[in-house]
Amino acid sequence: MPRISYVNGQYVRHAVAAVHIEDRGYQFSDAVYEVIAIIDGRLVDETLHFERLERSLREIGMEMPFSRAHFVLKIRELLRLNRSRSGSLYIQVSRGVAPRDHKFPKAPVRPGVVMTVKPLRLPPAELVEKGVEVISVPDIRWKRPDIKSVSLLPNILAKEDAVRKGVYEAWLVADDGTVTEGTSTNAWIIAGGAIVTRAAGHEILNGVTRLALLDIARAEGLKIEERAFTLDEALAADEAFLTSTSAFVMPIVRIDGKDIGDGSPGPKTRALAKSYGTHLRQDA
Amino acid sequence: MPRISYVNGQYVRHAVAAVHIEDRGYQFSDAVYEVIAIIDGRLVDETLHFERLERSLREIGMEMPFSRAHFVLKIRELLRLNRSRSGSLYIQVSRGVAPRDHKFPKAPVRPGVVMTVKPLRLPPAELVEKGVEVISVPDIRWKRPDIKSVSLLPNILAKEDAVRKGVYEAWLVADDGTVTEGTSTNAWIIAGGAIVTRAAGHEILNGVTRLALLDIARAEGLKIEERAFTLDEALAADEAFLTSTSAFVMPIVRIDGKDIGDGSPGPKTRALAKSYGTHLRQDA
Repeated sequence: MPRISYVNGQYVRHAVAAVHIEDRGYQFSDAVYEVIAIIDGRLVDETLHFERLERSLREIGMEMPFSRAHFVLKIRELLRLNRSRSGSLYIQVSRGVAPRDHKFPKAPVRPGVVMTVKPLRLPPAELVEKGVEVISVPDIRWKRPDIKSVSLLPNILAKEDAVRKGVYEAWLVADDGTVTEGTSTNAWIIAGGAIVTRAAGHEILNGVTRLALLDIARAEGLKIEERAFTLDEALAADEAFLTSTSAFVMPIVRIDGKDIGDGSPGPKTRALAKSYGTHLRQDA
Repeated sequence: MPRISYVNGQYVRHAVAAVHIEDRGYQFSDAVYEVIAIIDGRLVDETLHFERLERSLREIGMEMPFSRAHFVLKIRELLRLNRSRSGSLYIQVSRGVAPRDHKFPKAPVRPGVVMTVKPLRLPPAELVEKGVEVISVPDIRWKRPDIKSVSLLPNILAKEDAVRKGVYEAWLVADDGTVTEGTSTNAWIIAGGAIVTRAAGHEILNGVTRLALLDIARAEGLKIEERAFTLDEALAADEAFLTSTSAFVMPIVRIDGKDIGDGSPGPKTRALAKSYGTHLRQDA
């Protein structure tokens, strides 16, 4: 299958898909992005993703490069060219190409728009079955991770810490001892019978899977607490899990080497994962 | 003059100089950089720049892509092709191209190396003569700005704040009220007869111009205090200035609309700027 990517209005062979070296995304991480799961031609949680993309752009002083409808047309064409019905779509929008200067370009510049699609990899069944392990590391990111920008160097350095320790993810802990989120996932615990996850503020990326799961839990009448929790509280929790567009609902069975609950995925986490699976299949 | 840039081993027309859309510098700001002034074929403070490049790379788990001598050869060729003897050299080294994944690439990947050279623009004489104005904004950057990475989104947003207010630069103020540095410059005051600038720690980029100026001041027997200072202390200081590879030593005459000293460049700042000018011409 020829793999095709979208770059600034052109559909090009992925192998030669390129942006200018003075694209501000490359020199200043002056760009935002989204990752969207596509299942049987449907963009999962399409509205939530585009709303967030628009918000991220607005927060860095940009507008949508074109309408949502236009985006969807381009995505459909990209899928067609890749002969795909399902996949993981990556959209990146940068401020565009301009001679290097910290200041925004004075003259209007065409935003850079890049899209790739690759095969959708479902979370490995074995991991979902057995649960995963996380470590905690200090959260050294900037104070606006709610903006889904490509300014991800601290995230990848923390992820690499996790990889080197042989675990799935790193949970980021703020100076006050509270867990903000993972490097590319939201963090959840089940404690005192409630589902607990940090409220959406400037300290976390308001994950689309997070939002979808909160809706599901609300619809099921479950007790939800959107609030910060400390690492100590997580270590003593009944259950823990993480969510993301690519990990879905992933049980956590160990944090910093300590078993959570009995060290196997908890029943409430399993139920939520099941409900989320139904949502994935039903969403249109 | 044909403008030529260096991209991954090739010398190419700048207009078509490009990197792959999955260069990790583009998707994760997984890259570091240097800007070096070149005057009459000499790389100003060459050793300091390459030492810092090597340090930045080490801090993100990378090595120099090739030796310093090799770098200098490539730079000489780039200057020759651009028929330049002076200029502003930009070097960016990324972790290279790999399918998008927060984890470092498993298989060894060739680092991405991009270099551009453009005409050296000296700080406008009028600004140096009259001094510039800065505003203060909260420092919302990650906790490792000592690494000269392209993770610069907070910097450019703060710089744009300054632009919108019609001033030259924004000084970043930490939660504890101390000034860390500017968005692309180091911050200095003269207070109690001493030259004061923040000590090099994780909170600031250890500017090469900063280092060179400290050496000059030491050699001249001036009183130096490498320590944090608060915004209040700066507002009450006798003089203030900023330094960078492209601004050299730039007097500051107003902070947040308040005159510093009598609102004109101070005598000690002028003397330091003059000494730095001598250093620029002498350095080899």
